[in-house]
Amino acid sequence: MIFPILFTFFLLLSSSNAAVQDFCVADFAAPEGPAGFSCKKPASVKVNDFVFSGLGIAGNTSNIIKAAVTPAFVAQFPGVNGLGISIARLDLAVGGVVPFHTHPGASEVLIVAEGTICAGFVASDNTPYLHTLEKGDIMVFPQGLLHFQVNGGEAPALAFASFGSASPGLQILDFALFKNDLATELIAQTTFLDAAQIKKLKGVLGGTN
Amino acid sequence: MIFPILFTFFLLLSSSNAAVQDFCVADFAAPEGPAGFSCKKPASVKVNDFVFSGLGIAGNTSNIIKAAVTPAFVAQFPGVNGLGISIARLDLAVGGVVPFHTHPGASEVLIVAEGTICAGFVASDNTPYLHTLEKGDIMVFPQGLLHFQVNGGEAPALAFASFGSASPGLQILDFALFKNDLATELIAQTTFLDAAQIKKLKGVLGGTN
Amino acid sequence: MIFPILFTFFLLLSSSNAAVQDFCVADFAAPEGPAGFSCKKPASVKVNDFVFSGLGIAGNTSNIIKAAVTPAFVAQFPGVNGLGISIARLDLAVGGVVPFHTHPGASEVLIVAEGTICAGFVASDNTPYLHTLEKGDIMVFPQGLLHFQVNGGEAPALAFASFGSASPGLQILDFALFKNDLATELIAQTTFLDAAQIKKLKGVLGGTN
Amino acid sequence: MIFPILFTFFLLLSSSNAAVQDFCVADFAAPEGPAGFSCKKPASVKVNDFVFSGLGIAGNTSNIIKAAVTPAFVAQFPGVNGLGISIARLDLAVGGVVPFHTHPGASEVLIVAEGTICAGFVASDNTPYLHTLEKGDIMVFPQGLLHFQVNGGEAPALAFASFGSASPGLQILDFALFKNDLATELIAQTTFLDAAQIKKLKGVLGGTN
Amino acid sequence: MIFPILFTFFLLLSSSNAAVQDFCVADFAAPEGPAGFSCKKPASVKVNDFVFSGLGIAGNTSNIIKAAVTPAFVAQFPGVNGLGISIARLDLAVGGVVPFHTHPGASEVLIVAEGTICAGFVASDNTPYLHTLEKGDIMVFPQGLLHFQVNGGEAPALAFASFGSASPGLQILDFALFKNDLATELIAQTTFLDAAQIKKLKGVLGGTN
Amino acid sequence: MIFPILFTFFLLLSSSNAAVQDFCVADFAAPEGPAGFSCKKPASVKVNDFVFSGLGIAGNTSNIIKAAVTPAFVAQFPGVNGLGISIARLDLAVGGVVPFHTHPGASEVLIVAEGTICAGFVASDNTPYLHTLEKGDIMVFPQGLLHFQVNGGEAPALAFASFGSASPGLQILDFALFKNDLATELIAQTTFLDAAQIKKLKGVLGGTN
Repeated sequence: MIFPILFTFFLLLSSSNAAVQDFCVADFAAPEGPAGFSCKKPASVKVNDFVFSGLGIAGNTSNIIKAAVTPAFVAQFPGVNGLGISIARLDLAVGGVVPFHTHPGASEVLIVAEGTICAGFVASDNTPYLHTLEKGDIMVFPQGLLHFQVNGGEAPALAFASFGSASPGLQILDFALFKNDLATELIAQTTFLDAAQIKKLKGVLGGTN
Repeated sequence: MIFPILFTFFLLLSSSNAAVQDFCVADFAAPEGPAGFSCKKPASVKVNDFVFSGLGIAGNTSNIIKAAVTPAFVAQFPGVNGLGISIARLDLAVGGVVPFHTHPGASEVLIVAEGTICAGFVASDNTPYLHTLEKGDIMVFPQGLLHFQVNGGEAPALAFASFGSASPGLQILDFALFKNDLATELIAQTTFLDAAQIKKLKGVLGGTN
Repeated sequence: MIFPILFTFFLLLSSSNAAVQDFCVADFAAPEGPAGFSCKKPASVKVNDFVFSGLGIAGNTSNIIKAAVTPAFVAQFPGVNGLGISIARLDLAVGGVVPFHTHPGASEVLIVAEGTICAGFVASDNTPYLHTLEKGDIMVFPQGLLHFQVNGGEAPALAFASFGSASPGLQILDFALFKNDLATELIAQTTFLDAAQIKKLKGVLGGTN
Repeated sequence: MIFPILFTFFLLLSSSNAAVQDFCVADFAAPEGPAGFSCKKPASVKVNDFVFSGLGIAGNTSNIIKAAVTPAFVAQFPGVNGLGISIARLDLAVGGVVPFHTHPGASEVLIVAEGTICAGFVASDNTPYLHTLEKGDIMVFPQGLLHFQVNGGEAPALAFASFGSASPGLQILDFALFKNDLATELIAQTTFLDAAQIKKLKGVLGGTN
Repeated sequence: MIFPILFTFFLLLSSSNAAVQDFCVADFAAPEGPAGFSCKKPASVKVNDFVFSGLGIAGNTSNIIKAAVTPAFVAQFPGVNGLGISIARLDLAVGGVVPFHTHPGASEVLIVAEGTICAGFVASDNTPYLHTLEKGDIMVFPQGLLHFQVNGGEAPALAFASFGSASPGLQILDFALFKNDLATELIAQTTFLDAAQIKKLKGVLGGTN
Repeated sequence: MIFPILFTFFLLLSSSNAAVQDFCVADFAAPEGPAGFSCKKPASVKVNDFVFSGLGIAGNTSNIIKAAVTPAFVAQFPGVNGLGISIARLDLAVGGVVPFHTHPGASEVLIVAEGTICAGFVASDNTPYLHTLEKGDIMVFPQGLLHFQVNGGEAPALAFASFGSASPGLQILDFALFKNDLATELIAQTTFLDAAQIKKLKGVLGGTN
């Protein structure tokens, strides 16, 4: 009695199977387009494409900013390709700082998992919105606006940042200005900073000119 | 007098032709991305890419659910690639049922062409919305919500389902639960169904474990 | 034994209920925005908001074009508001014509339910794509392109048109040109039509100037 | 020397200020539309609109599923309105289960903050993707697909789920089927479950009919 | 002292660099998809990809319409691929006309740089919106609606048209009707124009049949 | 013979008119949502809603930056509401500068109408893309990235900037950092600028703390 039933169910299923596109795991070897990477062939998709373990490891905060950002964007986590979401781990040693930066492609929600973080963003009308976040608190940073995070406590802090894009981007203000070969004079003209200040930070960050 | 006019019109036309992208007929041999399949080269696009005759043939309802769904999604109908629309034919013999299912990628409007169909969906607050549709009636099923269709009459029913995506997807509840190798115990734990019930339906649908 | 179980399930449910927005049935009395109409309050949503019976009635084709279009766009069918989909009924008497028109806001898939329809669209490179559709055939008309439907047979034809928007819009070429007070001279200048031709069609369609 | 400089800077600023719409904090008293809630007036926006502390408190897992989901969707966290992102806290006691459910409106990334979670989703082709997640691991659940989470360890588990929408929705399979007044016979017809099984779960969950 | 600082900054930077997708310069040799062309490899992107000089040259208006449209759509200007924006130059000699046309894929804002332009569009309810634009005036033409521009003055006019898409498309009414092999009888049937009028314009524009 | 024809055409028209939503002119007195402002009632829409003359007037460049930006965003030009496009006028006196800024909500295409402009943006990998634009040249600035414009010549320059949003936003770096009450110490910590430099610019721009 079971065999004929199975057979006829397959008829229905065969028509639906052909149109499956539940997900589009990134195939980094194929072309990338404005909506994301090309999809891996369905037959080669594995559960590991949807899982990422890289955020379980604390980032190295032995650096000048005493902070580390470990992204699980599409470049690291191909399963989120095309799904409009990604995440990153943020480690802040005592005194650690994620300096002013923007994400051109997505808004961010930050959740504090350990410690205390002072965070803030500046709106287009130049109003700053600042808050000290304790463990479990969340804060949203609207897309494209300058924001920062500072460890506000006396112990290391850990946070996770979620983004509404698989590729939110990250432009760090100081790096954009001082970690390249933009002429000091041009930076001065377009930021009103003093040339000495610019040269000093170029020196720290490895910029030239 | 005509020749010079033609010549100068061509000047205007030549500039506009280069930017044509009215449509993007799916090229199944090229990479697929999150927004759909790659486009066929314009020179190889034919009117047949925009026409599909597969919905003119009644689906085979000689199966356990006495129903058949014949899709014209992008996988069958390459002309809808990237256009945010697709359609499917639904045949329901007397007593036929399209069991609870969802379309993860689009909302659906169903139009009854012949017969009577009892249809319904369940909202996130668990409220069911049920209606008996007569010939010519339409009903909308919001994206991602569980819904079903049952032939509510004494004659075969025919309906067409339109979707707001070229690839709306189709997840049939019973197939997702019982037509694979998910462990019976795990299904029991995550559905509260009895193990005997799960094993019975796995048997019918060909699931294992 | 049942009571404590019910109680604790409610705890989970209460948190999820607050975020429900499965649909947004149009409230025509509240403001409309670029994404559609405001939503009816959840408490006043009924199953009838998701069902529409107006397409079961043949349109009146006793007119000059021997055709009638009966829409179930958001203005008639509030349940599709925000869901990116709508539908319309097309009746074509023998000799009936839906003259050249565009839908600025959506692509269309037409399915022939009765009779024979000659349909076509013109691409931006001026290539016409024409096909004679028999019962059950479908054809897609990409967004914004000029297209038409003509009853190609010797019996009345019936078709359903689905759209990838709740508000696809409809601009009928002849009405846009000749059914208003655009000056004949201006129309001549911007269409190259002869003034006599313009005046003749203004007369038929009720245009002035 | 400073005064004239200030004055002229204001000239530039005055033109840019008028177009600010960096965010759209939800005004629950004003109409809601398909894209979200109406925006609070800029003058009444405070930093607290962008911060939420509700996820710092463990959910009550003293219930039948030994689990609790605490959302920070737009309904709880008005600052995410229109920003395409939200988050939720998931507490799973030992043996805790978030039963099969879908989010019709967004994909999800889950990050395990404490403990071990066995999670899985089923694709449209009925393939299950299962994984045991340790602390720091993340897994993505594509939009609209059935998925679950189970505490796979011997200690309580804590996780955070991020969504690519301010209002991802939540449809819990068992609640949709058994926690309302859908007729047992209709459920049996559309799920192939036995009537006795259905009645049993209606009893547990408070469903009728 | 500088070297260790540089080193540790690089640690932070290395993680962010991998996810860069600020732009997607069109690679015309790779597949095109519904969202646009494939992206050039980052290493081969040059500043010239973001700059276009073709609009600095006046279009040739020595043609029947005394007008020229010079587009900087994605096909001419690969840097706008995926960025949702493009632009075109419009030259109108005295008496010049851009005849009725639509852009199926985007709305347009026209800015008059020199001269006087009479412009107009027709809404779906057939209401014409006309205005005489002087130097510096702008007018918006909503997506997909028929519109035109006419030099309304006694000197050449120059304007720039911006579009909310990298590939807005351009369908010129007269070309779509008369510059192809659509049968005169079919055009007459679907436009109500007289056959003689159609044949006359086919003659001018090079159409056949 | 004309009267019956008119009558029957009206039948077709009446059905299409109800679904018109070609545009959504902003009604600033009604609620604003994430997708834009509420729409004016169709009956009160006038051609002037689609036309704006404010860009015909040179901005006042008698200020510290010798520059002026005159926007025609939705706040100034209600006709672009919901249409995904807007424009601005840029006047640069000799030596004029639009300092580093971002548009969080849209990409920009700049066209130089008079004079010479040195423009540039910095990508997320800190690579600067700089170019000297002559009259007629265009340059695209991808969404959310820091960019600037400087008058590179010996005469006043005029340019028009188009945006792929009706509300692209504008965050000027110096204003965000120095034109508010952010504590000098906090700015120093999150930008690595010296306190003296910060205080100096706060003094120029009117910031406190």
